[in-house]
Amino acid sequence: MNLVLVEAGEMGADGVVEVRDGRAEHLRRVLRVGPGHRVRMGIVDGGAGTAEVVAVSADGVVLRFECAGPHPPRPPVDLLLAMPRPKVMKRLWAQLAAMGVGRVLVTNAEKVERMYFDTHVLDPGFIRERLIEGLQQACDTRMPLVTVHRRLKVLVEDEVEGLCPGTCRVAADPSFARPVTAALAGRGDRRVLLAVGPEGGWTPYELDLLARHGFGGAGMGTRILRADTACIALLAQVQAALKEAGAGGS
Amino acid sequence: MNLVLVEAGEMGADGVVEVRDGRAEHLRRVLRVGPGHRVRMGIVDGGAGTAEVVAVSADGVVLRFECAGPHPPRPPVDLLLAMPRPKVMKRLWAQLAAMGVGRVLVTNAEKVERMYFDTHVLDPGFIRERLIEGLQQACDTRMPLVTVHRRLKVLVEDEVEGLCPGTCRVAADPSFARPVTAALAGRGDRRVLLAVGPEGGWTPYELDLLARHGFGGAGMGTRILRADTACIALLAQVQAALKEAGAGGS
Repeated sequence: MNLVLVEAGEMGADGVVEVRDGRAEHLRRVLRVGPGHRVRMGIVDGGAGTAEVVAVSADGVVLRFECAGPHPPRPPVDLLLAMPRPKVMKRLWAQLAAMGVGRVLVTNAEKVERMYFDTHVLDPGFIRERLIEGLQQACDTRMPLVTVHRRLKVLVEDEVEGLCPGTCRVAADPSFARPVTAALAGRGDRRVLLAVGPEGGWTPYELDLLARHGFGGAGMGTRILRADTACIALLAQVQAALKEAGAGGS
Repeated sequence: MNLVLVEAGEMGADGVVEVRDGRAEHLRRVLRVGPGHRVRMGIVDGGAGTAEVVAVSADGVVLRFECAGPHPPRPPVDLLLAMPRPKVMKRLWAQLAAMGVGRVLVTNAEKVERMYFDTHVLDPGFIRERLIEGLQQACDTRMPLVTVHRRLKVLVEDEVEGLCPGTCRVAADPSFARPVTAALAGRGDRRVLLAVGPEGGWTPYELDLLARHGFGGAGMGTRILRADTACIALLAQVQAALKEAGAGGS
Protein backbone atom coordinates (compact mmCIF):
# COMPACT_ATOMS: atom_id res chain seq x y z
CA MET A 1 0.00 0.00 0.00
CA ASN A 2 1.76 3.11 -1.25
CA LEU A 3 -1.25 5.38 -0.79
CA VAL A 4 -4.12 5.15 1.69
CA LEU A 5 -7.30 5.37 -0.33
CA VAL A 6 -10.50 6.44 1.42
CA GLU A 7 -14.07 6.91 0.21
CA ALA A 8 -15.28 10.54 0.18
CA GLY A 9 -18.04 9.52 2.61
CA GLU A 10 -15.54 8.34 5.19
CA MET A 11 -14.04 11.77 5.65
CA GLY A 12 -15.35 14.65 7.75
CA ALA A 13 -15.51 18.22 6.42
CA ASP A 14 -12.30 18.95 8.34
CA GLY A 15 -10.43 16.27 6.39
CA VAL A 16 -10.24 13.94 9.37
CA VAL A 17 -10.84 10.26 8.73
CA GLU A 18 -10.54 7.15 10.87
CA VAL A 19 -9.64 3.96 9.01
CA ARG A 20 -10.30 0.64 10.73
CA ASP A 21 -9.88 -2.23 8.27
CA GLY A 22 -6.86 -3.64 6.42
CA ARG A 23 -5.62 -0.11 5.86
CA ALA A 24 -5.30 0.45 9.64
CA GLU A 25 -3.59 -2.91 9.97
CA HIS A 26 -1.11 -1.99 7.23
CA LEU A 27 -0.44 1.47 8.73
CA ARG A 28 0.20 -0.04 12.16
CA ARG A 29 2.03 -3.24 11.33
CA VAL A 30 3.91 -2.58 8.08
CA LEU A 31 4.43 1.18 8.04
CA ARG A 32 4.46 1.35 11.89
CA VAL A 33 3.12 4.88 11.93
CA GLY A 34 2.73 7.02 15.03
CA PRO A 35 1.20 10.46 15.68
CA GLY A 36 2.83 13.13 13.51
CA HIS A 37 3.92 10.72 10.76
CA ARG A 38 2.87 11.58 7.23
CA VAL A 39 1.59 9.12 4.61
CA ARG A 40 0.27 9.49 1.09
CA MET A 41 -3.53 9.58 0.94
CA GLY A 42 -6.15 9.90 -1.76
CA ILE A 43 -9.94 9.96 -2.09
CA VAL A 44 -11.62 7.47 -4.44
CA ASP A 45 -12.25 9.39 -7.69
CA GLY A 46 -10.99 12.50 -5.95
CA GLY A 47 -7.75 14.26 -5.16
CA ALA A 48 -4.51 12.94 -3.74
CA GLY A 49 -2.06 14.36 -1.24
CA THR A 50 -0.73 13.49 2.18
CA ALA A 51 -2.21 12.85 5.58
CA GLU A 52 -0.87 13.39 9.05
CA VAL A 53 -1.42 10.63 11.55
CA VAL A 54 -3.42 12.09 14.46
CA ALA A 55 -3.88 9.01 16.61
CA VAL A 56 -3.23 5.27 16.53
CA SER A 57 -5.23 2.81 18.61
CA ALA A 58 -6.09 -0.87 18.55
CA ASP A 59 -9.36 0.09 16.85
CA GLY A 60 -7.99 2.16 14.02
CA VAL A 61 -5.85 5.02 12.79
CA VAL A 62 -7.04 8.63 12.67
CA LEU A 63 -5.56 10.78 9.92
CA ARG A 64 -5.97 14.37 8.71
CA PHE A 65 -5.92 14.70 4.90
CA GLU A 66 -4.32 17.57 2.97
CA CYS A 67 -5.18 17.54 -0.69
CA ALA A 68 -2.27 18.38 -2.99
CA GLY A 69 -4.10 18.35 -6.28
CA PRO A 70 -7.15 17.28 -8.26
CA HIS A 71 -7.68 13.69 -9.31
CA PRO A 72 -5.37 12.41 -12.04
CA PRO A 73 -6.69 12.02 -15.60
CA ARG A 74 -8.45 8.77 -16.47
CA PRO A 75 -5.95 6.28 -17.98
CA PRO A 76 -6.25 6.40 -21.79
CA VAL A 77 -6.92 2.67 -22.25
CA ASP A 78 -10.14 0.67 -21.79
CA LEU A 79 -10.24 -3.12 -21.74
CA LEU A 80 -12.79 -5.49 -23.27
CA LEU A 81 -11.97 -8.78 -21.59
CA ALA A 82 -13.45 -12.22 -22.20
CA MET A 83 -14.05 -13.59 -18.71
CA PRO A 84 -11.04 -15.69 -17.61
CA ARG A 85 -11.19 -18.56 -15.11
CA PRO A 86 -12.39 -17.10 -11.77
CA LYS A 87 -9.08 -17.95 -10.11
CA VAL A 88 -7.25 -15.84 -12.71
CA MET A 89 -9.83 -13.03 -12.69
CA LYS A 90 -9.57 -12.85 -8.90
CA ARG A 91 -5.86 -12.02 -9.13
CA LEU A 92 -6.25 -9.74 -12.14
CA TRP A 93 -8.50 -6.99 -10.72
CA ALA A 94 -5.83 -5.37 -8.56
CA GLN A 95 -3.24 -5.66 -11.32
CA LEU A 96 -5.55 -3.95 -13.84
CA ALA A 97 -6.16 -1.08 -11.43
CA ALA A 98 -2.43 -0.82 -10.78
CA MET A 99 -1.53 -0.81 -14.49
CA GLY A 100 -4.25 1.79 -15.09
CA VAL A 101 -7.41 1.24 -17.14
CA GLY A 102 -10.36 3.57 -17.58
CA ARG A 103 -13.03 0.92 -18.08
CA VAL A 104 -13.22 -2.84 -17.99
CA LEU A 105 -15.95 -4.52 -20.03
CA VAL A 106 -16.06 -8.16 -18.92
CA THR A 107 -17.75 -10.25 -21.56
CA ASN A 108 -18.88 -13.73 -22.41
CA ALA A 109 -17.39 -15.46 -25.46
CA GLU A 110 -17.75 -18.87 -27.05
CA LYS A 111 -14.80 -20.35 -25.18
CA VAL A 112 -15.82 -18.92 -21.81
CA GLU A 113 -17.57 -21.37 -19.48
CA ARG A 114 -20.96 -20.06 -18.36
CA MET A 115 -20.36 -20.98 -14.74
CA TYR A 116 -17.53 -18.42 -14.61
CA PHE A 117 -20.24 -15.74 -14.35
CA ASP A 118 -21.77 -17.23 -11.22
CA THR A 119 -18.73 -16.64 -9.02
CA HIS A 120 -18.03 -14.05 -6.35
CA VAL A 121 -15.14 -12.59 -8.39
CA LEU A 122 -17.77 -10.61 -10.33
CA ASP A 123 -19.58 -9.32 -7.24
CA PRO A 124 -19.39 -5.49 -7.26
CA GLY A 125 -18.22 -5.45 -3.63
CA PHE A 126 -15.43 -7.92 -4.30
CA ILE A 127 -14.34 -6.10 -7.45
CA ARG A 128 -14.26 -2.73 -5.69
CA GLU A 129 -12.14 -4.12 -2.85
CA ARG A 130 -9.61 -5.58 -5.28
CA LEU A 131 -9.52 -2.43 -7.45
CA ILE A 132 -8.87 -0.30 -4.36
CA GLU A 133 -5.96 -2.61 -3.53
CA GLY A 134 -4.48 -1.98 -6.98
CA LEU A 135 -5.01 1.79 -6.81
CA GLN A 136 -3.36 1.89 -3.37
CA GLN A 137 -0.40 0.00 -4.88
CA ALA A 138 -0.04 2.35 -7.86
CA CYS A 139 -0.87 5.62 -6.02
CA ASP A 140 -3.89 6.35 -8.19
CA THR A 141 -7.37 7.45 -7.11
CA ARG A 142 -9.31 6.87 -10.35
CA MET A 143 -11.56 3.85 -9.93
CA PRO A 144 -11.89 1.86 -13.18
CA LEU A 145 -15.52 1.50 -14.28
CA VAL A 146 -16.54 -2.14 -14.57
CA THR A 147 -19.52 -3.61 -16.41
CA VAL A 148 -20.36 -7.27 -17.08
CA HIS A 149 -21.84 -8.35 -20.40
CA ARG A 150 -23.36 -11.75 -21.05
CA ARG A 151 -23.51 -11.49 -24.85
CA LEU A 152 -20.47 -10.43 -26.88
CA LYS A 153 -22.55 -9.79 -30.00
CA VAL A 154 -24.90 -7.37 -28.21
CA LEU A 155 -21.95 -5.69 -26.52
CA VAL A 156 -20.02 -5.15 -29.74
CA GLU A 157 -23.00 -4.27 -31.94
CA ASP A 158 -25.10 -2.14 -29.60
CA GLU A 159 -23.32 -1.15 -26.43
CA VAL A 160 -19.60 -0.62 -26.91
CA GLU A 161 -19.86 2.72 -28.72
CA GLY A 162 -21.97 4.16 -25.91
CA LEU A 163 -19.60 2.90 -23.22
CA CYS A 164 -16.32 3.70 -24.98
CA PRO A 165 -17.15 6.35 -27.56
CA GLY A 166 -14.70 7.18 -30.34
CA THR A 167 -11.94 4.83 -29.23
CA CYS A 168 -9.21 3.31 -31.39
CA ARG A 169 -10.21 -0.38 -31.23
CA VAL A 170 -7.68 -3.19 -31.15
CA ALA A 171 -8.35 -6.93 -30.85
CA ALA A 172 -5.45 -8.98 -29.51
CA ASP A 173 -4.98 -12.56 -30.63
CA PRO A 174 -1.90 -14.79 -31.07
CA SER A 175 -2.99 -15.27 -34.71
CA PHE A 176 -2.14 -11.65 -35.56
CA ALA A 177 1.44 -10.94 -36.61
CA ARG A 178 1.04 -7.16 -36.48
CA PRO A 179 2.48 -5.68 -33.29
CA VAL A 180 0.46 -3.41 -31.00
CA THR A 181 2.42 -0.30 -32.04
CA ALA A 182 1.43 -0.79 -35.67
CA ALA A 183 -2.22 -1.35 -34.76
CA LEU A 184 -2.24 1.99 -32.93
CA ALA A 185 -0.43 3.93 -35.67
CA GLY A 186 -3.49 5.88 -36.88
CA ARG A 187 -4.87 6.55 -33.40
CA GLY A 188 -4.52 10.33 -33.31
CA ASP A 189 -5.90 11.62 -29.99
CA ARG A 190 -8.39 8.82 -29.45
CA ARG A 191 -8.52 6.65 -26.33
CA VAL A 192 -7.74 2.95 -26.91
CA LEU A 193 -10.13 0.03 -26.45
CA LEU A 194 -8.18 -3.23 -26.22
CA ALA A 195 -10.05 -6.53 -26.64
CA VAL A 196 -8.43 -9.58 -25.03
CA GLY A 197 -9.90 -13.01 -25.75
CA PRO A 198 -10.52 -16.04 -23.54
CA GLU A 199 -7.78 -18.52 -22.75
CA GLY A 200 -8.85 -20.75 -25.65
CA GLY A 201 -8.77 -17.69 -27.96
CA TRP A 202 -11.43 -15.86 -29.94
CA THR A 203 -13.31 -18.04 -32.46
CA PRO A 204 -13.19 -17.12 -36.18
CA TYR A 205 -16.79 -15.86 -35.85
CA GLU A 206 -15.81 -13.59 -32.96
CA LEU A 207 -12.70 -12.30 -34.74
CA ASP A 208 -14.88 -11.49 -37.72
CA LEU A 209 -17.46 -9.76 -35.50
CA LEU A 210 -14.72 -7.65 -33.92
CA ALA A 211 -13.14 -6.84 -37.30
CA ARG A 212 -16.51 -5.73 -38.72
CA HIS A 213 -16.84 -3.32 -35.80
CA GLY A 214 -13.52 -1.62 -36.27
CA PHE A 215 -11.22 -3.70 -34.08
CA GLY A 216 -7.83 -3.89 -35.81
CA GLY A 217 -5.84 -7.06 -35.07
CA ALA A 218 -2.61 -7.12 -33.05
CA GLY A 219 -0.48 -9.84 -31.51
CA MET A 220 2.53 -10.38 -29.29
CA GLY A 221 3.95 -13.47 -31.00
CA THR A 222 3.19 -17.16 -30.91
CA ARG A 223 3.54 -17.82 -27.18
CA ILE A 224 0.20 -18.63 -25.56
CA LEU A 225 -0.14 -16.68 -22.31
CA ARG A 226 -2.49 -17.06 -19.39
CA ALA A 227 -5.21 -14.39 -19.49
CA ASP A 228 -3.74 -12.33 -16.66
CA THR A 229 -0.20 -12.39 -18.07
CA ALA A 230 -1.55 -11.51 -21.53
CA CYS A 231 -3.60 -8.57 -20.19
CA ILE A 232 -0.67 -7.03 -18.34
CA ALA A 233 1.73 -7.57 -21.24
CA LEU A 234 -0.70 -6.08 -23.77
CA LEU A 235 -1.55 -3.10 -21.57
CA ALA A 236 2.18 -2.48 -21.11
CA GLN A 237 2.73 -2.54 -24.87
CA VAL A 238 -0.23 -0.20 -25.47
CA GLN A 239 1.08 2.21 -22.82
CA ALA A 240 4.55 2.16 -24.38
CA ALA A 241 3.09 2.86 -27.82
CA LEU A 242 0.99 5.76 -26.49
CA LYS A 243 3.97 7.25 -24.68
CA GLU A 244 6.13 6.96 -27.77
CA ALA A 245 3.46 8.62 -29.91
CA GLY A 246 2.94 11.31 -27.24
CA ALA A 247 6.68 12.03 -27.25
CA GLY A 248 6.55 12.71 -30.98
CA GLY A 249 8.18 9.38 -31.81
CA SER A 250 7.08 7.00 -34.56
CA MET B 1 -1.28 -26.91 -20.62
CA ASN B 2 -0.91 -26.28 -24.34
CA LEU B 3 2.09 -28.59 -24.73
CA VAL B 4 3.04 -31.69 -22.74
CA LEU B 5 6.63 -31.21 -21.65
CA VAL B 6 8.69 -34.26 -20.73
CA GLU B 7 12.27 -34.68 -19.54
CA ALA B 8 14.59 -36.40 -22.05
CA GLY B 9 15.21 -39.13 -19.47
CA GLU B 10 11.53 -40.00 -19.29
CA MET B 11 11.41 -41.07 -22.93
CA GLY B 12 12.48 -44.39 -24.43
CA ALA B 13 14.59 -44.59 -27.58
CA ASP B 14 11.40 -45.33 -29.53
CA GLY B 15 9.88 -42.01 -28.45
CA VAL B 16 7.41 -43.68 -26.09
CA VAL B 17 6.81 -42.02 -22.74
CA GLU B 18 4.37 -42.62 -19.91
CA VAL B 19 3.39 -39.56 -17.91
CA ARG B 20 1.83 -40.09 -14.49
CA ASP B 21 1.64 -36.79 -12.62
CA GLY B 22 -0.34 -33.60 -13.14
CA ARG B 23 0.25 -33.94 -16.87
CA ALA B 24 -1.64 -37.27 -16.96
CA GLU B 25 -4.40 -35.73 -14.88
CA HIS B 26 -4.69 -32.79 -17.30
CA LEU B 27 -4.67 -35.09 -20.36
CA ARG B 28 -7.40 -37.27 -18.89
CA ARG B 29 -9.63 -34.73 -17.18
CA VAL B 30 -9.28 -31.50 -19.13
CA LEU B 31 -8.27 -32.63 -22.63
CA ARG B 32 -10.12 -35.97 -22.23
CA VAL B 33 -7.76 -37.77 -24.57
CA GLY B 34 -8.19 -41.36 -25.77
CA PRO B 35 -6.01 -43.70 -27.85
CA GLY B 36 -5.25 -42.21 -31.25
CA HIS B 37 -5.67 -38.58 -30.13
CA ARG B 38 -2.79 -36.25 -30.88
CA VAL B 39 -1.41 -33.58 -28.54
CA ARG B 40 1.51 -31.15 -28.71
CA MET B 41 4.60 -32.42 -26.94
CA GLY B 42 8.12 -31.19 -26.31
CA ILE B 43 11.28 -32.29 -24.54
CA VAL B 44 12.83 -30.01 -21.92
CA ASP B 45 15.63 -28.13 -23.73
CA GLY B 46 14.95 -30.29 -26.76
CA GLY B 47 12.66 -30.42 -29.77
CA ALA B 48 8.90 -29.98 -30.02
CA GLY B 49 6.28 -31.74 -32.09
CA THR B 50 3.23 -33.88 -31.50
CA ALA B 51 2.51 -37.12 -29.69
CA GLU B 52 -0.07 -39.82 -30.32
CA VAL B 53 -1.88 -41.15 -27.29
CA VAL B 54 -1.18 -44.90 -27.12
CA ALA B 55 -3.00 -45.82 -23.93
CA VAL B 56 -4.88 -44.19 -21.07
CA SER B 57 -5.22 -45.80 -17.67
CA ALA B 58 -5.89 -44.74 -14.10
CA ASP B 59 -2.11 -44.82 -13.55
CA GLY B 60 -1.01 -42.63 -16.43
CA VAL B 61 -1.06 -41.82 -20.11
CA VAL B 62 1.28 -43.46 -22.64
CA LEU B 63 2.25 -41.32 -25.63
CA ARG B 64 4.51 -41.71 -28.66
CA PHE B 65 6.46 -38.55 -29.55
CA GLU B 66 7.20 -37.35 -33.08
CA CYS B 67 9.66 -34.50 -33.18
CA ALA B 68 8.79 -31.76 -35.68
CA GLY B 69 11.85 -29.57 -35.25
CA PRO B 70 14.83 -28.62 -33.11
CA HIS B 71 14.44 -26.61 -29.93
CA PRO B 72 13.49 -22.97 -30.35
CA PRO B 73 16.12 -20.27 -29.89
CA ARG B 74 16.73 -19.00 -26.37
CA PRO B 75 14.61 -15.89 -25.69
CA PRO B 76 16.76 -12.76 -26.20
CA VAL B 77 16.12 -11.29 -22.74
CA ASP B 78 17.68 -12.13 -19.37
CA LEU B 79 16.33 -10.85 -16.06
CA LEU B 80 18.22 -9.64 -13.00
CA LEU B 81 15.54 -9.60 -10.33
CA ALA B 82 15.71 -8.38 -6.74
CA MET B 83 13.95 -11.10 -4.75
CA PRO B 84 10.28 -10.16 -4.29
CA ARG B 85 8.08 -11.34 -1.40
CA PRO B 86 7.93 -15.14 -1.54
CA LYS B 87 4.17 -15.07 -2.22
CA VAL B 88 4.81 -12.93 -5.31
CA MET B 89 7.87 -14.92 -6.46
CA LYS B 90 5.86 -18.12 -6.19
CA ARG B 91 3.37 -16.87 -8.76
CA LEU B 92 6.01 -15.25 -10.94
CA TRP B 93 8.10 -18.28 -11.99
CA ALA B 94 5.53 -19.73 -14.38
CA GLN B 95 4.75 -16.31 -15.82
CA LEU B 96 8.43 -15.61 -16.50
CA ALA B 97 8.79 -18.93 -18.32
CA ALA B 98 5.63 -18.20 -20.29
CA MET B 99 6.76 -14.70 -21.28
CA GLY B 100 10.16 -16.12 -22.29
CA VAL B 101 13.44 -15.34 -20.54
CA GLY B 102 16.87 -16.87 -21.12
CA ARG B 103 18.22 -16.49 -17.61
CA VAL B 104 16.95 -15.27 -14.26
CA LEU B 105 19.47 -13.92 -11.77
CA VAL B 106 17.65 -13.62 -8.44
CA THR B 107 19.53 -11.22 -6.20
CA ASN B 108 19.53 -9.65 -2.81
CA ALA B 109 19.24 -5.86 -2.49
CA GLU B 110 19.02 -3.41 0.36
CA LYS B 111 15.22 -3.38 0.46
CA VAL B 112 14.92 -7.17 0.24
CA GLU B 113 14.22 -8.92 3.55
CA ARG B 114 16.82 -11.60 4.25
CA MET B 115 14.22 -14.16 5.27
CA TYR B 116 12.88 -14.16 1.70
CA PHE B 117 15.87 -16.34 0.77
CA ASP B 118 14.99 -19.04 3.26
CA THR B 119 11.73 -20.02 1.58
CA HIS B 120 10.80 -22.98 -0.60
CA VAL B 121 10.09 -20.71 -3.57
CA LEU B 122 13.85 -20.71 -4.25
CA ASP B 123 14.23 -24.52 -4.01
CA PRO B 124 15.52 -25.77 -7.38
CA GLY B 125 12.83 -28.48 -7.48
CA PHE B 126 10.04 -25.99 -6.83
CA ILE B 127 11.41 -23.55 -9.39
CA ARG B 128 11.72 -26.23 -12.07
CA GLU B 129 8.14 -27.38 -11.52
CA ARG B 130 6.79 -23.85 -11.86
CA LEU B 131 8.96 -23.09 -14.91
CA ILE B 132 7.73 -26.26 -16.61
CA GLU B 133 4.17 -25.10 -15.94
CA GLY B 134 4.95 -21.82 -17.74
CA LEU B 135 6.68 -23.51 -20.67
CA GLN B 136 3.72 -25.88 -21.07
CA GLN B 137 1.43 -22.84 -21.13
CA ALA B 138 3.49 -20.99 -23.77
CA CYS B 139 4.44 -24.05 -25.90
CA ASP B 140 8.16 -23.56 -25.35
CA THR B 141 10.78 -26.15 -24.39
CA ARG B 142 13.69 -23.87 -23.42
CA MET B 143 14.14 -23.97 -19.65
CA PRO B 144 15.25 -20.60 -18.25
CA LEU B 145 18.52 -20.86 -16.32
CA VAL B 146 18.13 -19.68 -12.73
CA THR B 147 20.84 -18.66 -10.27
CA VAL B 148 20.46 -17.10 -6.82
CA HIS B 149 22.88 -14.40 -5.64
CA ARG B 150 23.11 -13.19 -2.07
CA ARG B 151 25.22 -10.08 -2.78
CA LEU B 152 24.23 -7.60 -5.47
CA LYS B 153 27.63 -5.92 -5.47
CA VAL B 154 29.49 -9.18 -6.12
CA LEU B 155 26.96 -10.16 -8.77
CA VAL B 156 27.24 -6.87 -10.65
CA GLU B 157 31.00 -6.41 -10.27
CA ASP B 158 32.28 -9.95 -10.72
CA GLU B 159 29.66 -12.38 -11.97
CA VAL B 160 27.19 -10.79 -14.33
CA GLU B 161 29.52 -10.53 -17.34
CA GLY B 162 30.31 -14.24 -17.14
CA LEU B 163 26.67 -15.21 -16.82
CA CYS B 164 25.22 -12.79 -19.38
CA PRO B 165 28.14 -11.82 -21.62
CA GLY B 166 27.89 -8.86 -23.95
CA THR B 167 24.31 -7.93 -23.13
CA CYS B 168 22.68 -4.54 -23.49
CA ARG B 169 22.01 -3.72 -19.83
CA VAL B 170 18.94 -1.84 -18.65
CA ALA B 171 17.93 -1.01 -15.08
CA ALA B 172 14.24 -0.34 -14.56
CA ASP B 173 13.08 2.08 -11.89
CA PRO B 174 10.06 4.39 -11.55
CA SER B 175 12.54 7.28 -11.15
CA PHE B 176 13.65 7.04 -14.79
CA ALA B 177 11.61 9.00 -17.33
CA ARG B 178 13.27 7.39 -20.35
CA PRO B 179 11.09 4.64 -21.86
CA VAL B 180 12.37 1.11 -22.48
CA THR B 181 12.50 1.60 -26.26
CA ALA B 182 14.90 4.52 -25.89
CA ALA B 183 17.12 2.60 -23.47
CA LEU B 184 17.46 -0.19 -26.06
CA ALA B 185 18.11 2.13 -29.01
CA GLY B 186 21.83 1.34 -29.34
CA ARG B 187 21.45 -2.39 -28.73
CA GLY B 188 22.52 -3.71 -32.12
CA ASP B 189 22.46 -7.51 -32.04
CA ARG B 190 23.10 -7.87 -28.34
CA ARG B 191 20.87 -9.80 -25.95
CA VAL B 192 19.17 -7.70 -23.27
CA LEU B 193 19.74 -7.91 -19.51
CA LEU B 194 16.88 -6.23 -17.65
CA ALA B 195 17.34 -5.38 -13.96
CA VAL B 196 14.15 -5.06 -11.91
CA GLY B 197 14.39 -3.74 -8.34
CA PRO B 198 12.67 -4.77 -5.12
CA GLU B 199 9.19 -3.55 -4.23
CA GLY B 200 10.65 -0.66 -2.23
CA GLY B 201 12.85 0.27 -5.22
CA TRP B 202 16.61 0.31 -5.77
CA THR B 203 18.53 2.57 -3.34
CA PRO B 204 20.61 5.48 -4.72
CA TYR B 205 23.74 3.40 -3.99
CA GLU B 206 22.36 0.46 -5.99
CA LEU B 207 21.29 2.67 -8.88
CA ASP B 208 24.79 4.13 -8.95
CA LEU B 209 26.36 0.66 -8.83
CA LEU B 210 24.20 -0.46 -11.75
CA ALA B 211 24.93 2.73 -13.72
CA ARG B 212 28.68 2.32 -13.23
CA HIS B 213 28.39 -1.18 -14.70
CA GLY B 214 26.65 -0.17 -17.86
CA PHE B 215 22.98 -0.44 -16.89
CA GLY B 216 21.09 2.33 -18.67
CA GLY B 217 18.00 3.58 -16.84
CA ALA B 218 14.44 3.07 -18.08
CA GLY B 219 11.00 3.50 -16.58
CA MET B 220 7.32 2.91 -17.28
CA GLY B 221 5.94 6.00 -15.60
CA THR B 222 5.12 6.99 -12.05
CA ARG B 223 2.76 4.16 -11.09
CA ILE B 224 4.30 1.83 -8.52
CA LEU B 225 3.66 -1.78 -9.53
CA ARG B 226 3.93 -5.02 -7.62
CA ALA B 227 7.10 -6.88 -8.59
CA ASP B 228 5.30 -9.52 -10.66
CA THR B 229 3.21 -6.97 -12.56
CA ALA B 230 6.31 -4.84 -13.15
CA CYS B 231 8.34 -7.80 -14.48
CA ILE B 232 5.68 -8.85 -16.95
CA ALA B 233 5.01 -5.29 -18.10
CA LEU B 234 8.73 -4.55 -18.55
CA LEU B 235 9.42 -7.83 -20.37
CA ALA B 236 6.49 -7.06 -22.68
CA GLN B 237 7.90 -3.62 -23.45
CA VAL B 238 11.39 -5.05 -24.07
CA GLN B 239 9.95 -7.69 -26.39
CA ALA B 240 7.95 -5.07 -28.30
CA ALA B 241 11.06 -2.91 -28.68
CA LEU B 242 13.14 -5.87 -29.93
CA LYS B 243 10.45 -6.86 -32.42
CA GLU B 244 10.17 -3.31 -33.69
CA ALA B 245 13.94 -3.06 -34.12
CA GLY B 246 14.01 -6.50 -35.79
CA ALA B 247 11.32 -5.40 -38.24
CA GLY B 248 13.48 -2.45 -39.28
CA GLY B 249 11.32 0.04 -37.38
CA SER B 250 12.56 2.88 -35.21
